[in-house]
Amino acid sequence: MTFPTPLTGVVPPVCTPLTPDREVDVPSLIRLVDQLVEAGVHGLFVLGSTSEAAYLTDRQRRLVTETVTGHVAGQLPVLAGAIDMTTARVLDHVADATAAGADAVVVTAPFYTRTHPSEIARHFRLIAARSTVPVVAYDIPVAVHTKLPAELVLELASDGALAGLKDSSGDLAAFREVVTGAQHRPDTTGFAVLTGSELLVDAALALGADGAVPGLANVDPHGYVRLYRLCRAGDWAGARAEQERLCTLFGMVRVGDPARMGGSSSALGAFKAALQLRGMIDCPATAEPQVPLSAEETERVGKFLAAAGLL
Amino acid sequence: MTFPTPLTGVVPPVCTPLTPDREVDVPSLIRLVDQLVEAGVHGLFVLGSTSEAAYLTDRQRRLVTETVTGHVAGQLPVLAGAIDMTTARVLDHVADATAAGADAVVVTAPFYTRTHPSEIARHFRLIAARSTVPVVAYDIPVAVHTKLPAELVLELASDGALAGLKDSSGDLAAFREVVTGAQHRPDTTGFAVLTGSELLVDAALALGADGAVPGLANVDPHGYVRLYRLCRAGDWAGARAEQERLCTLFGMVRVGDPARMGGSSSALGAFKAALQLRGMIDCPATAEPQVPLSAEETERVGKFLAAAGLL
Amino acid sequence: MTFPTPLTGVVPPVCTPLTPDREVDVPSLIRLVDQLVEAGVHGLFVLGSTSEAAYLTDRQRRLVTETVTGHVAGQLPVLAGAIDMTTARVLDHVADATAAGADAVVVTAPFYTRTHPSEIARHFRLIAARSTVPVVAYDIPVAVHTKLPAELVLELASDGALAGLKDSSGDLAAFREVVTGAQHRPDTTGFAVLTGSELLVDAALALGADGAVPGLANVDPHGYVRLYRLCRAGDWAGARAEQERLCTLFGMVRVGDPARMGGSSSALGAFKAALQLRGMIDCPATAEPQVPLSAEETERVGKFLAAAGLL
Amino acid sequence: MTFPTPLTGVVPPVCTPLTPDREVDVPSLIRLVDQLVEAGVHGLFVLGSTSEAAYLTDRQRRLVTETVTGHVAGQLPVLAGAIDMTTARVLDHVADATAAGADAVVVTAPFYTRTHPSEIARHFRLIAARSTVPVVAYDIPVAVHTKLPAELVLELASDGALAGLKDSSGDLAAFREVVTGAQHRPDTTGFAVLTGSELLVDAALALGADGAVPGLANVDPHGYVRLYRLCRAGDWAGARAEQERLCTLFGMVRVGDPARMGGSSSALGAFKAALQLRGMIDCPATAEPQVPLSAEETERVGKFLAAAGLL
Repeated sequence: MTFPTPLTGVVPPVCTPLTPDREVDVPSLIRLVDQLVEAGVHGLFVLGSTSEAAYLTDRQRRLVTETVTGHVAGQLPVLAGAIDMTTARVLDHVADATAAGADAVVVTAPFYTRTHPSEIARHFRLIAARSTVPVVAYDIPVAVHTKLPAELVLELASDGALAGLKDSSGDLAAFREVVTGAQHRPDTTGFAVLTGSELLVDAALALGADGAVPGLANVDPHGYVRLYRLCRAGDWAGARAEQERLCTLFGMVRVGDPARMGGSSSALGAFKAALQLRGMIDCPATAEPQVPLSAEETERVGKFLAAAGLL
Repeated sequence: MTFPTPLTGVVPPVCTPLTPDREVDVPSLIRLVDQLVEAGVHGLFVLGSTSEAAYLTDRQRRLVTETVTGHVAGQLPVLAGAIDMTTARVLDHVADATAAGADAVVVTAPFYTRTHPSEIARHFRLIAARSTVPVVAYDIPVAVHTKLPAELVLELASDGALAGLKDSSGDLAAFREVVTGAQHRPDTTGFAVLTGSELLVDAALALGADGAVPGLANVDPHGYVRLYRLCRAGDWAGARAEQERLCTLFGMVRVGDPARMGGSSSALGAFKAALQLRGMIDCPATAEPQVPLSAEETERVGKFLAAAGLL
Repeated sequence: MTFPTPLTGVVPPVCTPLTPDREVDVPSLIRLVDQLVEAGVHGLFVLGSTSEAAYLTDRQRRLVTETVTGHVAGQLPVLAGAIDMTTARVLDHVADATAAGADAVVVTAPFYTRTHPSEIARHFRLIAARSTVPVVAYDIPVAVHTKLPAELVLELASDGALAGLKDSSGDLAAFREVVTGAQHRPDTTGFAVLTGSELLVDAALALGADGAVPGLANVDPHGYVRLYRLCRAGDWAGARAEQERLCTLFGMVRVGDPARMGGSSSALGAFKAALQLRGMIDCPATAEPQVPLSAEETERVGKFLAAAGLL
Repeated sequence: MTFPTPLTGVVPPVCTPLTPDREVDVPSLIRLVDQLVEAGVHGLFVLGSTSEAAYLTDRQRRLVTETVTGHVAGQLPVLAGAIDMTTARVLDHVADATAAGADAVVVTAPFYTRTHPSEIARHFRLIAARSTVPVVAYDIPVAVHTKLPAELVLELASDGALAGLKDSSGDLAAFREVVTGAQHRPDTTGFAVLTGSELLVDAALALGADGAVPGLANVDPHGYVRLYRLCRAGDWAGARAEQERLCTLFGMVRVGDPARMGGSSSALGAFKAALQLRGMIDCPATAEPQVPLSAEETERVGKFLAAAGLL
């Protein structure tokens, strides 16, 4: 489909179900996508952090994108992460994603290298110049270790280099600067400002965001679609209640023992355990070298689901 | 050739010469390698940070490794970086490097993801189990944003998972802990502890290191070989004088204007400018999105060379 | 006055006007306080970061607290920062602040030292046990280099060790966890959750915060009081418009040249320049070693004021 | 005594023995100082990080300095930390330390505030201008969260603002830049470059340092004096063996359970436990809010002492 201008609504970063031997579980992926679409989400983002893009091989990445674009067949837009360290490597992923049918690509600042705002700008401009689909910036300092400056995002938006921003920085004040800035620059019409937060969707929409890309929407897509509609209807009290329910549910990301595993293992492990417990995918395996949840930790995920009325 | 046990001496992380349109300049790469070998270096490390591995596409990485292994044809060991975010992706690079003839692979902790010491251990153990060549750990917190704990390195060395450590952490006290620890564990015989510092080679060798992997050895390989020999001969005063000369030369890495470019652009730009000024490669281009040095900055590189007696 | 339960509303962190030779300008301080009170603020916070508490000597700190408590004479609550590295040192400031008439003290986690959550808990418990006035936790990771975990704040609130939280972390999701958590624990009745953000007051109040402690309220107290009332009235569109006006005004904190000065010099210099330009204080001097704004930078502050209708 | 030019040798940062109720234990402090002096140390540094300066009240700080200067009575130089956030506060401590007889003061960059190199320079220049005793810069990024740039230290040394550097950064390459830089600038004659490392004293002296300020020298002053003499005699093999023995002993700093306490509690707790076990002080208490070592952790300290031949 054509990329909407701007992209709005709930755009889940789609989990990548894996088999016990860590191959992409295509039937589960299709089943998950069907459930997200049926719940009314407005777009799909494959190969983001929640999708374990950093863990998938290039072959697996292509398989994911092809599977999802082939399956949804233009019913709703599919964005694909093109996550790699620097410009030429990202461009290889952009070519793969585009060949696989993605409607837009999502790109971070350079990482691993020591970089500079002028190099970040150069990076996005080069990628935009060579991409045949719109480019969305992915601001994720916890992974990339630099924060995209609001002024730079707005400049790239004005230039037409960027079609949107997915903000996973946790810095809502800086996010607001982009939202408000984009509204006051006529040449940024169509620029989509999306929050990557699970916990502040009501707040982000209240201050003018176009949509949300919450990882937890894999687990409870109906909740996030409902939250989005309440916000759009101006029912802020209702939205806050729904958001608070989802915040409680999000507590599942901490079930993993921090003495035994890192934050990715715990959070992605919890999402996948929840998806399996809800019958949405077959196997909760996460990619190597992530550490699996214990039986007891998985049981606690179940309690979060039950408390939220999802089990 | 067989990987030496342990690897010792000067092992330059070989710069990757590029053409003006950012393709690998194979003739320059061969010329550079020849000059390093003639200067008496003891091994070559391709696809490290100084090699711009983070900027090269997979195709370019393969070309670099094949070119170098093919050219040196077993005269001295060739280590190849397998730099990527997580286990499965690194294993793809390990397979490529091994197919291209590398004698060992050099692997960092996971990055981009939020990781944990237990996951780092799991990562190295999985890679070692599936690699047909020895695995050297690459500790480079400035890129990876975690430091490999000395205790973990020693444990993996004892297990046989690691054949060596390339330490670019700048933390000589932690480095010493690995050096001394390895000497006191009989099951770490053959484990090679190499410093990645340009500035502390004499100090590292004095406290027991096996060798050094200094980026500046591209520019002045004779200097580092001389320094290594002075240390091995116990001529610490001579070593200190040579090291101090090289420290002054290393000042070139700061020629780039920090208002205009990041640290990689400045340091790698300076090394490549120096190589071109010395006639060792054809073109000083660095990979995108790095910012090139100005003419005035390149001129300052020339002054560093002249002051060191290299021009 | 008795400390209100909970403290609500707009509680400006009062700037400390200085004379050209860096002594506390008592008449200007009184004038500033009068203007804040007349604008309808609900409390005053002296010796916070915006007050340059980190720069004032103990003698100056006592003078500030005595001046303000003496002048407002119980009309509204006065909170005083007790900013120091560790427990015993903070307790000396608590004693000073209490002797000077403060209604509550505001305390950060230990800093300069390497600390641990269990030590942070111990620190707050010891201070609460020995303080005769309520203790408010001050979460300011940019200064203290640790973030107060939400769970710890709630535990200390439940224990009665803390009477409130002033959150200057910029992490609205974690702030929400405290707000919502406090609402669901009956034993935290009266616990005040205050945002230290200038830019997200509407969002913080919408999700349940009790009040705000915005440094910019020195410059535009009427704006923040208006914003607070709009939020309390449920006029979220009106609140957003007022908040966006204040966000634009806040842009003044970046007038200082980053090549010449740090963030404190620029932000506090801008606030004080604005206060002088508006006639609220006599002299814009900031404490040593902060760098003063240039004439041109001060002129830009004036333009921000004019654009906001304040000059 | 007059401050030596330059200060050389072993200058322990003297632990501050406390009573069980956390008052300065003056008799133990005097006993400790006597043992350090008898072991042949070349100076004493009170109120550094190892001295728990960040934890002591101003009254306690004065008592420590007066006690030590009064007791040593000019036999060897006494440096006193003047640890506080910003210029005016540090100057109050400088006045106290000078009144208490200190021969030099040791000052960090500003902390808690967001600072800038130009402000750090201004800070040191203002303090030097108003201090009647020499000022030594204290580079301790783990506490202060900025690193003193080598170029800035050398500039302040050339200006006469600084009489020396105590480097606790762990960055030996940057340390070397100061050492070598000072040797090549004639106007820095008498500038003392001292390492704060316990683990790299041999390396630091080998590259030209004037001396060392190792916290562990409280526990084993004879070891560090011996190490210093071996280095000065050019017996590098002997020095390395002694240094490695001290490195092993230093392992005691990790006895504290990281799930229960921070790094300061563990390291300072271990030093004080060792001092008590060796009979050098009466009570191992550390200042609040540090967590005490358990009996089992203290026992492990004893094993480190026994292994080093100190018990």
